Amino acid sequence: MLRLYDYLPSGNGYKVRLLLTQLGIPFDRVEMDILKGETRTPEFLKKNPNGRIPVLQLESGEYLAESNAILFYLAEGTPFLPAGRFARAQVLQWMCFEQYSHEPNIATVRFWMHSVMTDERRAQVEPKRKLGYAALDVMEGHLGQRTFFVAECYSIADIALYAYTHVADEGGFDLDRFSAVRTWLARVRAQRHHIPITHA
Amino acid sequence: MLRLYDYLPSGNGYKVRLLLTQLGIPFDRVEMDILKGETRTPEFLKKNPNGRIPVLQLESGEYLAESNAILFYLAEGTPFLPAGRFARAQVLQWMCFEQYSHEPNIATVRFWMHSVMTDERRAQVEPKRKLGYAALDVMEGHLGQRTFFVAECYSIADIALYAYTHVADEGGFDLDRFSAVRTWLARVRAQRHHIPITHA
Repeated sequence: MLRLYDYLPSGNGYKVRLLLTQLGIPFDRVEMDILKGETRTPEFLKKNPNGRIPVLQLESGEYLAESNAILFYLAEGTPFLPAGRFARAQVLQWMCFEQYSHEPNIATVRFWMHSVMTDERRAQVEPKRKLGYAALDVMEGHLGQRTFFVAECYSIADIALYAYTHVADEGGFDLDRFSAVRTWLARVRAQRHHIPITHA
Repeated sequence: MLRLYDYLPSGNGYKVRLLLTQLGIPFDRVEMDILKGETRTPEFLKKNPNGRIPVLQLESGEYLAESNAILFYLAEGTPFLPAGRFARAQVLQWMCFEQYSHEPNIATVRFWMHSVMTDERRAQVEPKRKLGYAALDVMEGHLGQRTFFVAECYSIADIALYAYTHVADEGGFDLDRFSAVRTWLARVRAQRHHIPITHA
């Protein structure tokens, strides 16, 4: 059986949990308390030298890290990843956008507000707030005339971007003026076998 | 013909230039001066609403953004992307690592040192230095027993990580103690049809 090294509040872990559930693939979940340094032990670093969850252990025993790489691996050959070459590249484009322009701002502020807010971190909240809203603006513009991010189909691009957008308010982001984003969030939530981020 | 919206000093642009050259695919290059805001004009934002290069315009007229998504698009079906499902996912894993743990630290400090170093930026240099060295440590550990990042073959994972590692010194990173990384850099440089980052 697949084994997922995970941390329940993590949106990155949630992406994988959600896709596995929607694919109907059973898996063992191993909770790692990142606040206690459980992903920085020598034992865990053998699984992922970068010391982060999620990590998926395959039935072969091999490990795969990075949430969006795991999504791609699991989605290949399923309706969650379009078959066309350009559409597939567009899915990757939005997942790269998520990891570079969205997650480091929106998810990081949420994490700080839920763990420890040091002075050094506090100084970075406003710059991250600005960049996070810029990412939301890009999403709002794109979703204004579309139902989903790529090819009008629910895909792993939507899962990747849903993960931290739907809890952006926990990082102090106000989605009021992002009406297309909010409509899309509801559309994602209405997909078959959807689970909330709190669902282990 | 393919058209690449690019900025010569950019490692992200260089990734695409290098792969296109090694694939023998001709392309038009359009230089965008990001320091003059040329990627933030209304006209450019129609090509990429996230206002960044590289952007690849296909012969169909469609646009694809995000360097690693472009690499994946171009490499599919070529020796630059392994055919096996797990190896392909490992390539994505290392490209996600590059965009999340490597580029925002190593490339960003280099960019600041070459453009404008404000007080706000200066305060972030040390934290980024620490995270950049942590990324180099992960690479060093992985390359200690391997010739390339995935499946012992030169792939787009190597291109993605080479782009900013080989100019890390321009951001003040000292690669002296990373001997496996330096051996790998030379190995990448020795690949057929390699071009330097300065090659338009």
